[in-house]
Amino acid sequence: MQIDNAMAELGPIFAGRVSRAPAILAQHGQSETLAASGRPDAVVYPQTTEEVVRIAQICARNGVPMVGWGAGTSLEGHALAVRGGVTVDFTQMDAVLAVYPEDMLCVVQPGITRERLNEELRATGLFFPVDPGANATLGGMAMTRASGTTAVRYGTMRDNVLGLEVVLADGRVIRTGTSAPKTSAGYDLTALMVGSEGTLGLVTEVTLRLQGQPEAVSAAVCAFPTLSDAVDCVIATIQSGIPMARIEFLDTASVAACAAWAGMDLPAAPHLLVEFHGSPSGVQEQAERYGELAGEFGSSGFQWARAAEDRARLWRMRHQAFQAILASRPGATAMVTDVCVPISRLAEAVAETHEDIARGSIPGPILGHVGDGNFHSVLLIDPANPAEQAEAKALANRMAERALRLGGTITGEHGVGSGKIGLMEAEHGLAWDVMRQIKQALDPANLMNPGKMLRP
Amino acid sequence: MQIDNAMAELGPIFAGRVSRAPAILAQHGQSETLAASGRPDAVVYPQTTEEVVRIAQICARNGVPMVGWGAGTSLEGHALAVRGGVTVDFTQMDAVLAVYPEDMLCVVQPGITRERLNEELRATGLFFPVDPGANATLGGMAMTRASGTTAVRYGTMRDNVLGLEVVLADGRVIRTGTSAPKTSAGYDLTALMVGSEGTLGLVTEVTLRLQGQPEAVSAAVCAFPTLSDAVDCVIATIQSGIPMARIEFLDTASVAACAAWAGMDLPAAPHLLVEFHGSPSGVQEQAERYGELAGEFGSSGFQWARAAEDRARLWRMRHQAFQAILASRPGATAMVTDVCVPISRLAEAVAETHEDIARGSIPGPILGHVGDGNFHSVLLIDPANPAEQAEAKALANRMAERALRLGGTITGEHGVGSGKIGLMEAEHGLAWDVMRQIKQALDPANLMNPGKMLRP
Ligand SMILES: Cc1cc2nc3c(=O)[nH]c(=O)nc-3n(C[C@H](O)[C@H](O)[C@H](O)COP(=O)(O)OP(=O)(O)OC[C@H]3O[C@@H](n4cnc5c(N)ncnc54)[C@H](O)[C@@H]3O)c2cc1C
Ligand SMILES: Cc1cc2nc3c(=O)[nH]c(=O)nc-3n(C[C@H](O)[C@H](O)[C@H](O)COP(=O)(O)OP(=O)(O)OC[C@H]3O[C@@H](n4cnc5c(N)ncnc54)[C@H](O)[C@@H]3O)c2cc1C
Repeated sequence: MQIDNAMAELGPIFAGRVSRAPAILAQHGQSETLAASGRPDAVVYPQTTEEVVRIAQICARNGVPMVGWGAGTSLEGHALAVRGGVTVDFTQMDAVLAVYPEDMLCVVQPGITRERLNEELRATGLFFPVDPGANATLGGMAMTRASGTTAVRYGTMRDNVLGLEVVLADGRVIRTGTSAPKTSAGYDLTALMVGSEGTLGLVTEVTLRLQGQPEAVSAAVCAFPTLSDAVDCVIATIQSGIPMARIEFLDTASVAACAAWAGMDLPAAPHLLVEFHGSPSGVQEQAERYGELAGEFGSSGFQWARAAEDRARLWRMRHQAFQAILASRPGATAMVTDVCVPISRLAEAVAETHEDIARGSIPGPILGHVGDGNFHSVLLIDPANPAEQAEAKALANRMAERALRLGGTITGEHGVGSGKIGLMEAEHGLAWDVMRQIKQALDPANLMNPGKMLRP
Repeated sequence: MQIDNAMAELGPIFAGRVSRAPAILAQHGQSETLAASGRPDAVVYPQTTEEVVRIAQICARNGVPMVGWGAGTSLEGHALAVRGGVTVDFTQMDAVLAVYPEDMLCVVQPGITRERLNEELRATGLFFPVDPGANATLGGMAMTRASGTTAVRYGTMRDNVLGLEVVLADGRVIRTGTSAPKTSAGYDLTALMVGSEGTLGLVTEVTLRLQGQPEAVSAAVCAFPTLSDAVDCVIATIQSGIPMARIEFLDTASVAACAAWAGMDLPAAPHLLVEFHGSPSGVQEQAERYGELAGEFGSSGFQWARAAEDRARLWRMRHQAFQAILASRPGATAMVTDVCVPISRLAEAVAETHEDIARGSIPGPILGHVGDGNFHSVLLIDPANPAEQAEAKALANRMAERALRLGGTITGEHGVGSGKIGLMEAEHGLAWDVMRQIKQALDPANLMNPGKMLRP
């Protein structure tokens, strides 16, 4: 068998760092959500770029698929070995290789998590802003083009990855980008790789833009009479140009779940969570302007979180929303939807989605990074009930179709993986074929994370 | 001949809009700078996407190269038909197709110039910020990944193009991107196309992010004792986090040329030109902080331009710098260099370049968008003197090598065209081969702007 031949070559090189133990395979064969399962034949833990090159060469020679693994938190089955093969687990490549405070850049290995990166940066006065809820790795985040609560201010991984080192399917190592703030020297391979979900190569180094820690930070949470009031307030806030650092929406069901989970006392109503970054006077001005706008939309119960601990508590609650919502239906599995629309269509998109979910039988709290026009519903399904699965799938498809009809996208930040392949044609038409042509040019044997994103 | 066959097909479709007149061919066969000449065999002026599809199909069928043409202001021979063929001049596709003020987006045809776009946007309270000196077209700017004076604040075309319609070499039409602020749905084809210099397809529509016209604007110009003082002031300003809208450097020679050309009175010293955008109080705060910093570096002769006319005069002077410098050596042609380095290495890069130029015999005033680490020298050459050409080429190559050594790029904004092909290997190594693989996948017959950017 191909995998046995590959193992015979990998074994001596990765003594103690390559495994076919069932527990290890199982750990790398599951994801947090309903998604095709995909257990690898082996898991290998490289420590250097040269080792990744060896893995690629050996797998290529033996026709064995290679699937990158960061923290495994992606939500569309991205990191599952749906065609078997070797999962390349990057947790032992997790160093900060260099920090350039004067250029506000750092270079990291892909396996470092965003929380640890920010701990290591703390003393420099800088931070890395992209913040998905999960404690994902920078490699995984680059590969899904992740964003999160702060993208409204600081952008997504598209904006914050300046360069990459990538091992291609044939073992060639390329470097994309430079340390200069901009370049016009040829095709933007960095941007092509960011969001490519490991289908074009294995990332071994990431150069990241950093931000100065804001002098002053202030956060707040407040309730709104109706879902439309909250969403209309978001639209007005964004259009008014207030430079929000975060503006997050939770519908009534999400608030109930989060408040219960975090032991916080919040009224049963839709809420917005916001944060402002800047100089002390700037933050105060922004907060006042936002407060006025929120007042126009009937906000109530404003709670300010000015102290660092209070803010941490607030964002911990938001970051645990997924777990909190999951716990609100014991025994359930989640299908997490993820659409993004132009800000002018957000109210329509959220309201229609809310009604659509309400008409069915599955709970589906709605929440999201609404400053970007991006929101999710966490559809809670009994995993033993195929009818619920089908209903959830149909709901998710209607959400995606609605987003496309409104000029948006089938995925704002989670990506395609195997879960959203069926929607790619509708979004891209012939451009989807162009993606496949690029894939074929760089990975003709289809060994890099096969079965993801591209037309089967 | 292939071109005759193509003309036989194009003629009836483009009656009066396809030409082989020598004057038209000559106009499309030259550029503003020293660059390989390249006269097309014909020029065609499409008015619709469908017409561009017809052109692509006819050229593909007959094996005839297709070269896009916007305003022809690119500086590395980008738009020259170095292998003959048909130049597709987009000046008759120059409409604003839609403006979405609530989403701060617009959709334009590629042939509209940035000045006219901003005129058309004026009443909306929005503007398009990317500002190369020349009155380039949005299609050309997208294709060179242009930037300019305001990129330090608003980013480059990479950041400001949200989507494209592209006619591929085989006549397929694809749409990239959506109107949502972000997406994770597959490879970022928008970013792949932006900066591709027409080598992957002809752009027929561009979706652009817009910005709110700032409430308050203030600009200033001031002199510094030495080149290092001015550049060190830029580095300190950027690192202090003051959100500059523009920060431009002119060395003594550039200042002399510009002042003479514009009839302004400026001391013979290196200068910085700056601009601040924001609320009235924000602009004042920024201007004060900058003023203090500039003072620390010995600035003198501060002139504020608060009135719109004064600012317009200041930026007109900056935008005409190229013409002004060219006029400073009558009869000369220019070779405009364009490197970009990490901000921490800017002082080194500029000082070494200045010394290098001073050692030679060719005048080469230095100026640039230094807030991005990007600067140019305009090397003034007697076109009849091959020794000067060789000296300029050698200087330009040393500038590029210096930029690479300092972690930068061979071109910050002008692009590769035919002029910088010889430097691509040094910057990209194996990644340059990956660019060629992508090109081959999408344009196997090499008909889209052949002879540019990729390995010959
Ligand atoms: C509770 C929760 C909240 C979330 N919230 C957000 C959110 O707000 N925003 C958001 O964007 N996402 C969110 N996600 C999704 C997830 O966190 C992101 O998709 C994240 O980017 C995945 O990172 P990871 O390290 O877990 O990558 P993995 O899941 O391990 O892998 C992701 C993809 O990248 C590939 N890959 C990983 N490392 C490499 C490498 N070095 N080289 C090549 N390919 C590689 C994998 O093969 C896979 O295709 C959330 C997930 C959870 C569970
Ligand atoms: C005085 C002066 C100052 C300048 N300052 C700057 C500056 O500050 N920053 C900067 O970035 N540049 C600057 N430039 C360079 C130039 O303005 C830019 O490169 C600009 O983007 C070119 O736009 P254009 O419309 O003239 O394109 P063209 O020169 O006509 O074409 C540029 C490239 O795009 C292709 N192309 C054009 N339209 C299409 C289309 N619709 N589809 C496919 N391909 C197409 C062409 O084939 C060519 O490869 C300056 C130039 C001059 C003369």
